[in-house]
Amino acid sequence: MNSLTRASCQALDERDCLSSFRDEFVLDDTVIYLDGNSLGALPRTVPGRLREVVLREWGQGLIRSWNAAGWMEAPTRIGGKIARLIGADRDEVIATDSTSVNLFKLMVAALRLRPGRPVILSETGNFPTDLYLAEGVAGLFGDRQLRLVPADAIGFSIDADVALVTLTHVDFRSGRLHDMERITAEAHAAGALILWDLSHSAGAMPIELAGAAVDLAVGCGYKYLNGGPGAPAFMFVARRLQSALRQPITGWMGHAAPFEFAPDYTPAAGIARTLSGTPPVLSMAALETALDMWERVDLAAVRRKAARLGDLFIRLVEARCSGFRLASPRQASERGSQVSFHHPQGYAIMQALIRRGVIGDFRAPDLLRFGFAPLYIRYVDVWDAVEHLAAVMAGGEWDRPELKARARVT
Amino acid sequence: MNSLTRASCQALDERDCLSSFRDEFVLDDTVIYLDGNSLGALPRTVPGRLREVVLREWGQGLIRSWNAAGWMEAPTRIGGKIARLIGADRDEVIATDSTSVNLFKLMVAALRLRPGRPVILSETGNFPTDLYLAEGVAGLFGDRQLRLVPADAIGFSIDADVALVTLTHVDFRSGRLHDMERITAEAHAAGALILWDLSHSAGAMPIELAGAAVDLAVGCGYKYLNGGPGAPAFMFVARRLQSALRQPITGWMGHAAPFEFAPDYTPAAGIARTLSGTPPVLSMAALETALDMWERVDLAAVRRKAARLGDLFIRLVEARCSGFRLASPRQASERGSQVSFHHPQGYAIMQALIRRGVIGDFRAPDLLRFGFAPLYIRYVDVWDAVEHLAAVMAGGEWDRPELKARARVT
Repeated sequence: MNSLTRASCQALDERDCLSSFRDEFVLDDTVIYLDGNSLGALPRTVPGRLREVVLREWGQGLIRSWNAAGWMEAPTRIGGKIARLIGADRDEVIATDSTSVNLFKLMVAALRLRPGRPVILSETGNFPTDLYLAEGVAGLFGDRQLRLVPADAIGFSIDADVALVTLTHVDFRSGRLHDMERITAEAHAAGALILWDLSHSAGAMPIELAGAAVDLAVGCGYKYLNGGPGAPAFMFVARRLQSALRQPITGWMGHAAPFEFAPDYTPAAGIARTLSGTPPVLSMAALETALDMWERVDLAAVRRKAARLGDLFIRLVEARCSGFRLASPRQASERGSQVSFHHPQGYAIMQALIRRGVIGDFRAPDLLRFGFAPLYIRYVDVWDAVEHLAAVMAGGEWDRPELKARARVT
Repeated sequence: MNSLTRASCQALDERDCLSSFRDEFVLDDTVIYLDGNSLGALPRTVPGRLREVVLREWGQGLIRSWNAAGWMEAPTRIGGKIARLIGADRDEVIATDSTSVNLFKLMVAALRLRPGRPVILSETGNFPTDLYLAEGVAGLFGDRQLRLVPADAIGFSIDADVALVTLTHVDFRSGRLHDMERITAEAHAAGALILWDLSHSAGAMPIELAGAAVDLAVGCGYKYLNGGPGAPAFMFVARRLQSALRQPITGWMGHAAPFEFAPDYTPAAGIARTLSGTPPVLSMAALETALDMWERVDLAAVRRKAARLGDLFIRLVEARCSGFRLASPRQASERGSQVSFHHPQGYAIMQALIRRGVIGDFRAPDLLRFGFAPLYIRYVDVWDAVEHLAAVMAGGEWDRPELKARARVT
């Protein structure tokens, strides 16, 4: 490894079966973008498609486009395109609203499916918004509560009081990957339902929701799926649960007959009952266009490349930069598509990297986070990013007051 | 009136102080678009702005645009632009999610502000999705209920059991306008809160939420505001209620410090606590661009023109077409910016009109609905629309099996 050179990285890129995808994105060569786990890059097909939706479908078609341009079916059609990526059937996935709103809907629905059980169980390190929502959902009912335990105590903690176990598949700080199949089986053995948040794993690895007998899942459209800033999120509801599922935000799009304008609410058959209001068509169109690329993507290859990019990054950083402590699992099989390092000056170091065009992100108190989206990150990008990091550290480039003054961080 | 000619309509257009706004929209001259109350037309500034957001902010700026391009502040910034249109202060309005989701949030929040009172009161003819949501909200709690009464019995029905009165300002079928000030005062006199749905009035007339001492309101971005299909909706919370307001969908964007990733939820100060997840930035950008036009719009002139367009339409239809029965108030002061007529063959007639390029819509069982968006509808459009309607009726053009076969109707 110590003999690795930039030329060897170029050779790895030449042999990479995913290398051609990079050209399908708008990427500035002065930037090394290691934050696709927060916001995916722009697929080249999106601007043209959006222009068509705006000028032809909205401008010319006007209200007629709800039928003529298929806007009405967009949530189920887009859900269908996500299904293959997460090991679900097309009629088990739908795209709508935000991850937060979708978590809310499915958490309430899950509690209703397990009425005698007062507890939502999660881990203390779960993604904060997931915890906020679980806290909010528990607070809606007088007799429910959120119970938090360390990640490794989840299996042990699922008892007969637990209605729902909710976890994020890949930890947003460390990138640590949960064992979906095992924890799902443990939840089921105790009579609980499980809800996985796939925001940091969908598009980064093969996911087998059906194979693991998962009940419910949500995920994000704007990270690895490249659907654009704030892209609509998705929900998965296993077919066996759909007819009993009752989500609380009962708007017209989830009605059995939305255009009948009947006075009473009757939920649609199937996954469509999870819909609420009118979806943001322009943002939906960007997401759908971004998803079309995924039809040609081999997720096993994505997973293999993500592992190698992460391994390479860890080895190069540890060989060339001191003071960094690995925050992610060293074993690629135990992490998602990101690598994080602790460093006491993490904030200022990340600012210095960003000034050099190496874009990762920082999470308090001391975490530098680097995401490797295998569709557009090359082995040479990893090499070059570590070159920059080594230069930042060697030159003390981070040690400037304006970089250390921590303002708002995304 | 009977001596009115197309030339007189043209003369009215020439004297119209709003006439120049029409050129600010992309409108096909082969179409007469009388459905701006369902989906507003496309402002000319939107395609260019969206291209910039996609290519420059997303494509080039990537994750940095959350700060650099002001995406983080979009919900409050866009809310601020809507505030003037509804008689609110800038820090009382926010743009996010859909009308359905926002109704849900504010209904739950209202029940929490009136804990001893079990009833949500509305009218039987309220917009169906509002009723579905109220039903859903009441069903969340074991001891709450939705009480429906006829519109004219609302004031009479607000008793000490009522926590919240929720009404749509303009009836979606008839266009009938509620007396916001009177009903709000009646709700307050009985100790109840009020929540107005402004979806069919915002942008169609001046609204004075502060003047009427309204508590809560929601509204739609894609009707008169022209924000694009499925544009994000807005919420109003009177400043005096903001610090006590607790909405249930407690996602990260509504947190006091969204980037701290703290484990516990602390609501943001002010209106931002109504936010949940990440907003759909592309759809938000279209809405914001559409709103910029409104800075130059005199809403009193909009209201005057809407009244005259509606009056003209009613008189011409009644003079030239038989079999139509007015479903809207004849007095312009009692209706919004739409006019509806009953006709037993309404569905087929509307289909025949749409084939001729006159786009209105149909609502079961027999309602033809015509919206007059004063920024882009001309007096000659009203004349020409009635010409087409008269021709459809005179020629029996609607009497074809393919037009009468009612499929899905938007």
